[in-house]
Amino acid sequence: MFWLTGLSGAGKTTLARAAENRLFAAGVDVTVLDGDTLRAGLCSDLGFSEADRTENVRRAAEVARILRDAGQVVLVTLISPLKSDRELAARIIGENFAEIFVDAGLDVCEQRDPKGLYAAARAGKISSFTGIDAPYEAPQSPALRVETGAQAVDAAAGELVTFVEATVRTGAGQRKRG
Amino acid sequence: MFWLTGLSGAGKTTLARAAENRLFAAGVDVTVLDGDTLRAGLCSDLGFSEADRTENVRRAAEVARILRDAGQVVLVTLISPLKSDRELAARIIGENFAEIFVDAGLDVCEQRDPKGLYAAARAGKISSFTGIDAPYEAPQSPALRVETGAQAVDAAAGELVTFVEATVRTGAGQRKRG
Repeated sequence: MFWLTGLSGAGKTTLARAAENRLFAAGVDVTVLDGDTLRAGLCSDLGFSEADRTENVRRAAEVARILRDAGQVVLVTLISPLKSDRELAARIIGENFAEIFVDAGLDVCEQRDPKGLYAAARAGKISSFTGIDAPYEAPQSPALRVETGAQAVDAAAGELVTFVEATVRTGAGQRKRG
Repeated sequence: MFWLTGLSGAGKTTLARAAENRLFAAGVDVTVLDGDTLRAGLCSDLGFSEADRTENVRRAAEVARILRDAGQVVLVTLISPLKSDRELAARIIGENFAEIFVDAGLDVCEQRDPKGLYAAARAGKISSFTGIDAPYEAPQSPALRVETGAQAVDAAAGELVTFVEATVRTGAGQRKRG
C-alpha cells in the first residue's frame, strides 16, 4: 500500500501511472487509486471543506484496503495535505502503509498548473486550495521521498518502482482470503 | 459483476463465500464485497434511512466498479431492497452487471434469523428493517435466481459458480488498463 501525497501539480498521478505501467509489465497486480477519479465517482458528494477532505481520505483508505485485501498492490494518489488525515489512512490500512512524498516546490507546481487551478485560486475563483489558502503539511519522515520538481518522470518512476518492488517482495501485496 | 440481492438471512454472504472459494480454486480472481463488511468500514457513517441505503448502494457500486476495473470478478452481497437503487448500481457499473436474486421466503429468513435482527425488528428494537417495516422489491427479471430457502448451500453455490464461469468466459472479468 503506497500512499502518494503532494501538492496539486507535483506529478502524483503521472508518477503513479508511469510506475503502474512498469509494474504491470513486470507481472505485479497493481492498481492506481487516483484522487481525481475518486472525486468523480465514489466521493462525488464531497467538497473541499476540512471535514469533507478528511472523509475523502477515509474513503480512499477504505477502498485501498479492499483492493489490497483482493491481492492488489495499490498506489493511492491524493493531495491529503493534513498529517492527521494521513495518519487516519495509515490506521485504516493497518499494515504495509508506506507514505510516499511526491515532492515538487509550490513555485514549480504553480508554474506547471496543468489544470489551471492555481490561477483560479490566485484569482479567488476557488477557495481552500492547498498551498494557496489551505495548508500542506509535508511528511516529516516519509517511507520514500521522490523529487519531482527538476527530476524527469522516467527517473522518478524508476525510484518508485524500485521501492515498490523491494517492498512487495517482503509481502505487501499478499492476498488475504475471506 | 454479480450483484446478489435478497432478504436478510437469505444466505447472500454464505452463498457468495462458498462460490468465492470454488472460483478462487479454479483460478478466477474473485472478490466478495459484503454489505456487512462495508457497513463496518467504508459506509460506517451511514444509517438505514432510505437516503442512507441509497448512498450505501451507490458506494458499493463505485467500489465494485473499481475492483472490476482492477481485473477482479466481483460478487456484491447487499440486501439492496429497492429496484431504483439496484438500477442506480447497474448504471454506475455500466456493463456486465448481473442481478442475482438470492431467494428465500420471509418466513424462512425470519426462522433462521442468524443475527437476531428479525426478533429485534418484531420487538420494535430496530426500525426500517427490510421485510418487516421496510419494503423488499424482489427482482422481476434477474439474470439468475438462486433458491436458498430449501436448497442446500452446496447446490446453490454450484448454480452461482456455473453462472459466473459462463459469464466470465464471455468477458465480464477483463482487466481495463488506465
